[in-house]
Amino acid sequence: MRLAETFGENVRRVRLQHGLTQEALAVDVGLAVTYVGQIERGLRNPTLDVVERFAEALKTEPLILLQKATSRES
Amino acid sequence: MRLAETFGENVRRVRLQHGLTQEALAVDVGLAVTYVGQIERGLRNPTLDVVERFAEALKTEPLILLQKATSRES
Repeated sequence: MRLAETFGENVRRVRLQHGLTQEALAVDVGLAVTYVGQIERGLRNPTLDVVERFAEALKTEPLILLQKATSRES
Repeated sequence: MRLAETFGENVRRVRLQHGLTQEALAVDVGLAVTYVGQIERGLRNPTLDVVERFAEALKTEPLILLQKATSRES
């Protein structure tokens, strides 16, 4: 799985944990809701600055959003 | 420090550990040597796909190249 796909899955998981909609997250990161949806489906190739904006909006660390599910649970 | 700057420092550190020149690394990642130099100086904002290409060329994990120095030593 590409790192961008792992990132998308983690963004979705943390967003839902916070009870945020894609629209609310899009406002927080200052990006279009369509872009947020594509990020979550792993269809985008975000830059490190964008990764940091998502981490900040989701009140977490960038590396948390880049970790594979297995390495998160161990 | 921006994540892109942390990434640049780690690329440089691991490259030197492998005794690689910027030119050799540039060939391995298929990018211009000037770009590699700018990455190492934190002057670029690479995408996650580029981060993966550097990790592969440096025979390490992407997250290793994205960790802050302090969290690496603990």
